[in-house]
Amino acid sequence: MPRPITAFSNPLVKDTRALRDKKHRRETGLFMAEGLRILTEAREAGHLPVTLFFGAGTRHPLLDALIADTEAAHGEAIETNADILHKLSGKDNPQTVLGVYRAFDLSLERIDRAAAPLWIVAQALRDPGNLGTILRTGDAVGAGGLILIDECVDPFSVEAVRATMGALFTQKIAQARWPDFVAWLRAGPGQLIGTSLKATLDYQEPAYAPPAFVLVGNEAQGLPEAYEAECDLLVKMPMVGKADSLNAAVATAVMAYEVINQWRRKA
Amino acid sequence: MPRPITAFSNPLVKDTRALRDKKHRRETGLFMAEGLRILTEAREAGHLPVTLFFGAGTRHPLLDALIADTEAAHGEAIETNADILHKLSGKDNPQTVLGVYRAFDLSLERIDRAAAPLWIVAQALRDPGNLGTILRTGDAVGAGGLILIDECVDPFSVEAVRATMGALFTQKIAQARWPDFVAWLRAGPGQLIGTSLKATLDYQEPAYAPPAFVLVGNEAQGLPEAYEAECDLLVKMPMVGKADSLNAAVATAVMAYEVINQWRRKA
Repeated sequence: MPRPITAFSNPLVKDTRALRDKKHRRETGLFMAEGLRILTEAREAGHLPVTLFFGAGTRHPLLDALIADTEAAHGEAIETNADILHKLSGKDNPQTVLGVYRAFDLSLERIDRAAAPLWIVAQALRDPGNLGTILRTGDAVGAGGLILIDECVDPFSVEAVRATMGALFTQKIAQARWPDFVAWLRAGPGQLIGTSLKATLDYQEPAYAPPAFVLVGNEAQGLPEAYEAECDLLVKMPMVGKADSLNAAVATAVMAYEVINQWRRKA
Repeated sequence: MPRPITAFSNPLVKDTRALRDKKHRRETGLFMAEGLRILTEAREAGHLPVTLFFGAGTRHPLLDALIADTEAAHGEAIETNADILHKLSGKDNPQTVLGVYRAFDLSLERIDRAAAPLWIVAQALRDPGNLGTILRTGDAVGAGGLILIDECVDPFSVEAVRATMGALFTQKIAQARWPDFVAWLRAGPGQLIGTSLKATLDYQEPAYAPPAFVLVGNEAQGLPEAYEAECDLLVKMPMVGKADSLNAAVATAVMAYEVINQWRRKA
């Protein structure tokens, strides 16, 4: 049975609110996600919240299912009010459902490259919106997941989780330093495909082969030269205008669709 | 010669700062853009600021060119300090150059469809980041510009201008109600291409012909049914994952690259 909490001073409310800070997320190993839709995607992907907050008076069969499954998995369901949901989420119009989850293990060793033909690798990605958009694209193209290289935005930040719209729970995520990633990559099959403004090879020319690793660089700087040198294929998209780059999430998507389109034609 | 301003109370500082509000932008017909790079792209595209602010001590040949051209066009160059630049831009680390521009005329009648083979049309686009990303993509694929349908984010908002990274000045922008757009579109040649989750036609199947108008719907709702019905082609991108949509700017880019890739193959 859900427990009611209506006091701002409740320690669980304070602790959950603190998950908006990276430091607190790191210390507790927890993060929060908002919205019935995202929490339902999480549930369907096998992720249940440790703590589930929902607004009193919220009625939905999917919420009933969430409460039942959360409690069955020894999580706690808490009925609360709009003020507390606002305090937790920091949003003016908070979602009526909010879950606290255990952060996933981000070690590269957990990635089974054979599980998908395509993987996305992002280096020094800084924008939570881009991270979310790339995860959604990865889900759409059937990628296995996203490997974050060097200092990237925290995938468990409230902004990133929001932007993934649930793909955080359906895509695998790993985090690694570049040398560790390269060592891991070269220990098995894999085609590393970098996009670069300096490349001369059109992105529609090469034949891509699974497992393909699409590598995208930092929003402002692009890929470091040494990283480009490591790529098996360095390609460029045609750009006929005045601007010298595409948005990082857009470049990732255009590249990833080219890869799967090639494979669709062969199938 | 640049005039120095160092007083917060200076009316020009107050007026410029107020351009962060839509109401003030509408009343004055002005907007602001930040950064030497963006202002230089604007200059190269023939847009000069009415007022140019720059931090005292900033030295750059491109800034010298901006000052000279601004003054030659009877605009005013103002040397100021970091505090005032911070006040103007609202950013913690403000750019050292900031320009006030006349807003462009957004009437559809100014669009010459024959000027480009491809145009992007966005309906009820709400996110300034998406607007900026779509304009950058339009620039990259050689689109003529962006036509905003119904209530969209203000392209002259500080956030949108930032996100366009200069493409605001190189792409044409128009704004129209849907019935007016359809009347305009049907008065000449044009293939209206909508992307829809409900479509059955794969986006790589049809032959696209210029002038092609790629239509993208609102971030949350997609296109209204009546708008889809108006499309000459309604296509879908393959999506194999759990999520049911791509980010609006990503969908636009994947679609636009398919269109130009077809044309590149024929060329």
